[in-house]
Amino acid sequence: MSDEKLPSQSENFSEWYNQIVQRAELADYAPVRGCMVVRPYGWALWENIQSALDRRFKATGHVNAAFPLLIPMSFLQKEKEHVEGFSPELAVVTHGGGEELEEPLVVRPTSETIIGSMYSKWVKSYRDLPILINQWGNVVRWEMRTRLFLRTLEFYWQEGHTAHATADEALEETIRMLNIYTDFALNEAAVPVIPGRKSQAEKFAGAVNSYTIEAMMRDTRALQSGTSHFLGQNFAKAFEIRYLDPSNELQYAWTTSWGLSTRFIGAIIMTHGDDQGLILPPRLAPIQLVIVPIFRDDAEKSQVMPVVERLKNELSAFRLKVDDRENLTPGYKFNDWEMRGVPLRIEIGPKDVQKGTVALARRDRPGKAGKAFVSQENLAAQIADLLVDIHASMLARATAYRDANIHDPQDYEELKAVVANGWAFSWWCGNPACEAKVKEETKATTRCIPLEQPGGSGPCIVCGEQATEKVYFARAY
Amino acid sequence: MSDEKLPSQSENFSEWYNQIVQRAELADYAPVRGCMVVRPYGWALWENIQSALDRRFKATGHVNAAFPLLIPMSFLQKEKEHVEGFSPELAVVTHGGGEELEEPLVVRPTSETIIGSMYSKWVKSYRDLPILINQWGNVVRWEMRTRLFLRTLEFYWQEGHTAHATADEALEETIRMLNIYTDFALNEAAVPVIPGRKSQAEKFAGAVNSYTIEAMMRDTRALQSGTSHFLGQNFAKAFEIRYLDPSNELQYAWTTSWGLSTRFIGAIIMTHGDDQGLILPPRLAPIQLVIVPIFRDDAEKSQVMPVVERLKNELSAFRLKVDDRENLTPGYKFNDWEMRGVPLRIEIGPKDVQKGTVALARRDRPGKAGKAFVSQENLAAQIADLLVDIHASMLARATAYRDANIHDPQDYEELKAVVANGWAFSWWCGNPACEAKVKEETKATTRCIPLEQPGGSGPCIVCGEQATEKVYFARAY
Repeated sequence: MSDEKLPSQSENFSEWYNQIVQRAELADYAPVRGCMVVRPYGWALWENIQSALDRRFKATGHVNAAFPLLIPMSFLQKEKEHVEGFSPELAVVTHGGGEELEEPLVVRPTSETIIGSMYSKWVKSYRDLPILINQWGNVVRWEMRTRLFLRTLEFYWQEGHTAHATADEALEETIRMLNIYTDFALNEAAVPVIPGRKSQAEKFAGAVNSYTIEAMMRDTRALQSGTSHFLGQNFAKAFEIRYLDPSNELQYAWTTSWGLSTRFIGAIIMTHGDDQGLILPPRLAPIQLVIVPIFRDDAEKSQVMPVVERLKNELSAFRLKVDDRENLTPGYKFNDWEMRGVPLRIEIGPKDVQKGTVALARRDRPGKAGKAFVSQENLAAQIADLLVDIHASMLARATAYRDANIHDPQDYEELKAVVANGWAFSWWCGNPACEAKVKEETKATTRCIPLEQPGGSGPCIVCGEQATEKVYFARAY
Repeated sequence: MSDEKLPSQSENFSEWYNQIVQRAELADYAPVRGCMVVRPYGWALWENIQSALDRRFKATGHVNAAFPLLIPMSFLQKEKEHVEGFSPELAVVTHGGGEELEEPLVVRPTSETIIGSMYSKWVKSYRDLPILINQWGNVVRWEMRTRLFLRTLEFYWQEGHTAHATADEALEETIRMLNIYTDFALNEAAVPVIPGRKSQAEKFAGAVNSYTIEAMMRDTRALQSGTSHFLGQNFAKAFEIRYLDPSNELQYAWTTSWGLSTRFIGAIIMTHGDDQGLILPPRLAPIQLVIVPIFRDDAEKSQVMPVVERLKNELSAFRLKVDDRENLTPGYKFNDWEMRGVPLRIEIGPKDVQKGTVALARRDRPGKAGKAFVSQENLAAQIADLLVDIHASMLARATAYRDANIHDPQDYEELKAVVANGWAFSWWCGNPACEAKVKEETKATTRCIPLEQPGGSGPCIVCGEQATEKVYFARAY
């Protein structure tokens, strides 16, 4: 741990982010421009995210598979919008085994095309549908401005790709996965995302409609945190995914894709963190509890350590670490684990041993408000309850912050003012020109048209035309 | 399932392998030459392999992380033997984001170099050691002759990379991981591997010594199934991984690397399979039990299905599938699941319902020998025992086959004869010329110098010089 103080969020949020990612050893810059190394603490967080999502995918009938990293350039060109969207970002393999390739291969930026080509081979009849496959892997997009987790040349994600017999089924799947992402964000990460539809300008290249979960960071900027795309028959037509229906007629399938990436780690950091560092949600935290033994000499140590060992065993259902590093003060350790965002700290000193108590310190409530002295009796159950409460408190705090920073501007001038430091939730006529004007004049984009709408209608915040849907405008990562 | 008969192992082992991989839907060819798609059934097998290994890695203090896919070409050139070994196999990215790169990037064939560069940044003092990191990921090697799982352009693996303060610690780690691979192979996959040291000619490019687990396939050819490398200070010197020792002197670290890949799926297929198809080891099988309900009409169906449902619930601790597909005969289903290697089949018909029994059919003992009628009482416990027995029987069968095909030729002429259809276990003087002669004249290579040696000495099977170690010669995949 560096001894220099972390910059505060209010003085420089961006620098706070960069420093906390590295100091907490979540990730580091790689020697290749724009690439990151996800360090063990960051990867353990990602493994917990993977496990929470994978469980949900499997419970809804999905299976995992693996498709190739390298895709023939010609595949991307089969879907017109897709290639336009992705070609500026491609990494291209031109040589293999010492020879120039006849056709260049791209390192996958996403896998609709290669998976589409396999589905066209596998799908013959309506009995082969639906196909519900997910893949955990890495993709590469040649981004120019990169930041650890938020935007890197290579990132890690899952990408689901499904094929269905009907449009209804595919749309239902698209929304099912959006709901799974929302459920995951709220109930595992305590990130109060807003699920909604992307505008046509903001959708995925090749989709009919894209859906998103949008989160508000503590600088009020929006972070797109997961997306689910209804692809219609665009990729089925490009790759000839066709099936014989029950009346023996050849039909194109309907497909979806949906993904959530290591970017979500950025969402967790920037939704919950404070000036002391990370605050990790208990259900995903690599370390849920840290025990810091406190003693001044060997006599005290010999009193304290046996109790620490006993409690460590009693608490083995939790992801727990005992910080028995020598030559570091308890105060240093407290700061260190606070910086790393461990949800709960247990302190045990000689007095606790005598009294049969421990001190518990909640990361989400710094200072005395978050500290309690409790009996060692039944400690596991007390801690289980406390972690549930920490999750709920983190979600409540983030939701309150989000709602306090969503505004309902009365006119376009007010919209321009509020998006400088918050989100606007406004009527929008759906015209791309209005959206483009806001983007040009304020840098705020439409984030999503939420699934939950107030109903009724109102004047478009930009042009005044009558509108039937409200949209979030915000500056985004 | 195709209705054509699978070729028998004895008539065409290679064709048997190719067909079973595709028919059982473990993997498929991708549209890019030499690349594979690992299908859901194959990937579920790999996930179980991952989980069995990952548990062992974590129990021995290792943590996971992720390092970049793309490596500057100059990094590979820093270790002379390493670049010589790998440059013929590289896939090279020359363009990114629409522009030619100043320095080409290679798609990692293995990650010693990029990880070495990060360790040099992270390691300052002896207190930073050891570093015990593993990575699950994909690598690309531009192979010319490819086969699904055994040798593909892209494959999936784990690669462990550790750094230590002393040679002894690094060597101890190298052997620890070799032992973990051996334990995994025997106790999870029922593959009786032989652990040993590679010759200098067969070692990893850049290692001081490589260790391997070698398995015998049912055509008697050897398959290198996992490797663990003692890298000495070769990579530490190439990448300046240095630390201050307790007396404040700068020292180079000692490093290791070790890996096991999707190739191991090939080892499982070719160690256990028979003319009917796959035989999967119960601890790794994606489906451990299949229940096939048997009925001729709706009346029988309404008797049978409630019992099937009840047993399905009672057996929920197993990875279980109920095959309730309509319009397929029980016989077809039996063949289908036998081909897919499910270790145990449960048949339930109306008579079983009346008698309170089920029929159990073991995949590893085809025909009547493997069939038993047992009470539905306490079925979960009976099946748990049976799966243990199936594992043990599979291991015993494979071990017997292996040992029956290892020979002790008395002279060089006999060696030439035995390696045509088996392994030779012979004294070898260690001279690369003797090894090269065998390879040239018989296509057999030295597979490993096993850790367990008979002791004493004998004449080199090639040149007659006195030798102190015995080695396995075999033709290999």
